Amino acid sequence: MKSSVEKWGPFEAAFQGPGDGNPFVDVTLDVAFSRENRTVLAPGFYDGDGVYRVRFMPDTEGEWTYETRSNVVALNGVTGAFRCGPPSSGNHGPVRVRNRWHFAYADGAPYFPFGTTCYAWTHQPLDVQRQTLATMRPSGFNKLRMAVFPKHYTFNENEPLHDIYERGRDGALDFDRPNPIAFRHFETQVAALGEMGIEADVIIFHPYDRWGYCTMSAEQDDRYVRYLVARLAAHRNVWWSLANEYDFLIDVKPVAKWDRFFHIIEENDPARHLKSIHNGEETMNFDHRKPWVDHVCIQNWNVKRTTAWRNDWGKPIVNDELEYEGDISLAWGNITAQELVHRFWVTMTRGGYAGHGECYAHPQDLLWWAKGGVLHGESSRRIAFLRSIIEEDVVNGLTPAPDEWPWQRVSMAGDGEVRFIYLGEHQPGLWIAGLPTDDRPCEVDVIDAWNMTVTPAKRVPRPSFPKLRQRGGALRDPQPLASFAIELPSKPYQAIRIRPPRKGAG
Amino acid sequence: MKSSVEKWGPFEAAFQGPGDGNPFVDVTLDVAFSRENRTVLAPGFYDGDGVYRVRFMPDTEGEWTYETRSNVVALNGVTGAFRCGPPSSGNHGPVRVRNRWHFAYADGAPYFPFGTTCYAWTHQPLDVQRQTLATMRPSGFNKLRMAVFPKHYTFNENEPLHDIYERGRDGALDFDRPNPIAFRHFETQVAALGEMGIEADVIIFHPYDRWGYCTMSAEQDDRYVRYLVARLAAHRNVWWSLANEYDFLIDVKPVAKWDRFFHIIEENDPARHLKSIHNGEETMNFDHRKPWVDHVCIQNWNVKRTTAWRNDWGKPIVNDELEYEGDISLAWGNITAQELVHRFWVTMTRGGYAGHGECYAHPQDLLWWAKGGVLHGESSRRIAFLRSIIEEDVVNGLTPAPDEWPWQRVSMAGDGEVRFIYLGEHQPGLWIAGLPTDDRPCEVDVIDAWNMTVTPAKRVPRPSFPKLRQRGGALRDPQPLASFAIELPSKPYQAIRIRPPRKGAG
Repeated sequence: MKSSVEKWGPFEAAFQGPGDGNPFVDVTLDVAFSRENRTVLAPGFYDGDGVYRVRFMPDTEGEWTYETRSNVVALNGVTGAFRCGPPSSGNHGPVRVRNRWHFAYADGAPYFPFGTTCYAWTHQPLDVQRQTLATMRPSGFNKLRMAVFPKHYTFNENEPLHDIYERGRDGALDFDRPNPIAFRHFETQVAALGEMGIEADVIIFHPYDRWGYCTMSAEQDDRYVRYLVARLAAHRNVWWSLANEYDFLIDVKPVAKWDRFFHIIEENDPARHLKSIHNGEETMNFDHRKPWVDHVCIQNWNVKRTTAWRNDWGKPIVNDELEYEGDISLAWGNITAQELVHRFWVTMTRGGYAGHGECYAHPQDLLWWAKGGVLHGESSRRIAFLRSIIEEDVVNGLTPAPDEWPWQRVSMAGDGEVRFIYLGEHQPGLWIAGLPTDDRPCEVDVIDAWNMTVTPAKRVPRPSFPKLRQRGGALRDPQPLASFAIELPSKPYQAIRIRPPRKGAG
Repeated sequence: MKSSVEKWGPFEAAFQGPGDGNPFVDVTLDVAFSRENRTVLAPGFYDGDGVYRVRFMPDTEGEWTYETRSNVVALNGVTGAFRCGPPSSGNHGPVRVRNRWHFAYADGAPYFPFGTTCYAWTHQPLDVQRQTLATMRPSGFNKLRMAVFPKHYTFNENEPLHDIYERGRDGALDFDRPNPIAFRHFETQVAALGEMGIEADVIIFHPYDRWGYCTMSAEQDDRYVRYLVARLAAHRNVWWSLANEYDFLIDVKPVAKWDRFFHIIEENDPARHLKSIHNGEETMNFDHRKPWVDHVCIQNWNVKRTTAWRNDWGKPIVNDELEYEGDISLAWGNITAQELVHRFWVTMTRGGYAGHGECYAHPQDLLWWAKGGVLHGESSRRIAFLRSIIEEDVVNGLTPAPDEWPWQRVSMAGDGEVRFIYLGEHQPGLWIAGLPTDDRPCEVDVIDAWNMTVTPAKRVPRPSFPKLRQRGGALRDPQPLASFAIELPSKPYQAIRIRPPRKGAG
């Protein structure tokens, strides 16, 4: 019976081959997958014990055949076939860039990233990992930043569950021999997230290291990237984050190396998962305009600049570190929940996407941002609320208002006929700017971003104001025109939603 | 008996001259004030009814003589003398720039501007003006932004108490004939502020106009500036703010005109009061590096950039509009009191100075920011508290920490042996950065910027952290060294003060 796989599901084939020498280095394996006139090349990989595998994520339903290519006779010219059926419910395929500044699943379903961060969660004891998955499932987060290599950092000093490379007889890591057990475990957790509809933002390199992973040779680095891509690319929920804080590694991995890593992924990932690279210092942004960068991943607390970043780079902006909720002694990890929720709203209503992290001090150093486990903070529920608000109305992604008064001070963005105004630290009792200028029916609601309430806005006549002198001498109304004004509760963290009347409402 | 005046007090002499024709235009009058070999020229002015005056603020004690110069025989060559005695208690002279980024009184006493804004208060009914002065006295504000011309603007539509120019028989303003009554009234209010130790930041031009003041001819503009300077410069508490939002007038007053106004002041103000010019749009900053600009006056909500502005312009930064506390429908006038107090602290602890304004909607449009009256908000008390904290320890002005981690995220500034760390939206439970690295005795206090409390900090051993890889491969402690850490209450708006032990304390 011919094997079968769903569209955007992982097809896998295994082959027996040589187990002596160093198969990771000595043996090449690529597999050509074909459907009618189309052929796609996928890299194979050595999985230990004389077993070689290839994985492939078909993007088209129907009959597929494959044929192996290897420098080893036993692995060369092996053929096979499988059938690709329709995607199962909830399988929307991998996430792609859509509408230049936004994302969508391959099947066209909207995808708005609401990510969080547990850098080293797959390296913790298994019970903590189970807890992390149990926390993620209902959390409302749909993306998780996670590193392949273990992490050596403040609040994260424990040894990893698995070494990423095998150890030689001298006990030293052999960076020419990946440890299949470690990769299998990582894949299992990527798959577990995938089953929950959560994207795995896989961090390939990072500088938080005491084992030597970040100072492997150029050849070892390249081989590692190819090996990782060969193993993971068939998981539809994978994103490639080339580095966390790449600039802290710039002495050992200059920009040309990062460009090469991008190219190795391009050459080896037939699924073309999203690729990004994350900076440490604000002044060290990568040149995100390079065509091999799919979206901009940055850390920056100054979120009102989101619109400027969109203009600078012309790609989706994912600000994954706008500082984390917490109370630790490091300034990037101790803002209030109110501030983090506020920064999420500002980022979204300026056309970008934000990332969450949580750093509350813990007697056993169980900080969510590093190890996962459970959430202690107040922001995640509000972020889930924001996600529900966005997903209720937005389809194509939010386009920010032009950089004109008052939209430098407060934030506005819209998609089609829905529009959000986010007031943040502003607390007007009456509001006019951005309200409809015509008499078409519309719904206007006041959203309390912190208290998570949605209340129909009370409409009042727009007051009249004296006309003011403008540059050039013309007299103009100091407030935008609008067919009505609304009353607001004069407190911070309020948003306004304007949209057409709901069908069947009222 | 020879008249007498205190140092930095206003000397005034009056002369009878022609009252026919247009003395404002026809008659020139300058007075040379001399003490020993030194001669200082002060402009005279026509005060109506055939009376000409000259005012002069002597800056040196001793005997002074003067001699008038005029194109009118009766006013030419008139001589006189007066004696300048020591300044009275509380008279520290005019404010000057000191230490490049800061201010001080002429006698060397520190002056830290904590200003507020009542643009049109001198144009309101007299009972409101009395109320404004009564509010100012105990408020803790020591500078007031106020415009010479009346204001036509949202929430400020009433006619002024006095026309600034006389009206002709046709009822139209005659921009060749200043109205001495209006100027006398303005001077009275400048003097009333002076008696309370409050600097008058006098706004010479602004675009909020329906009477024609902002579109006078170039000659009328020049004459107005000279007239104003002649009348006001002897008041030691005067600052010259050439414009509010000069760029909204750029079509009628291009940059060359503003430069000329600066020069007219330089030529006519022997007291050399501080001169600045205030922008509207963020992108329209004046070139504050010009030598005739004494300090930078800007409006900008993005207060963590204060250190960058210091570096850009190399002059004292006075951010007089970091948005106002209030609840009106205009985004520049409706931030929360918490946010305004926060922005004050950020600005101060990055080496700048901030300005207050208040815009709560009022049934009779009595908004403090425009008309004065009474304060309704919550920020002014906290700003006065901040002033008391600063004045307790700072002498030379605060120098911000270098632009290195973590001082982009949180703020630190010091003067001599006192240092302030302001955490704002950060809520650490434990803090290390910026604490002393030696064992000299010191006082460390936690200041709650919002609740206005000062509490000795609880010291705890500095935790040890794993060393982390730095760029270049070196291992380094991720936290600054410090001889101890302190516990903090894990809430926003906290500051830390470090200073030598108080003499006689304990």
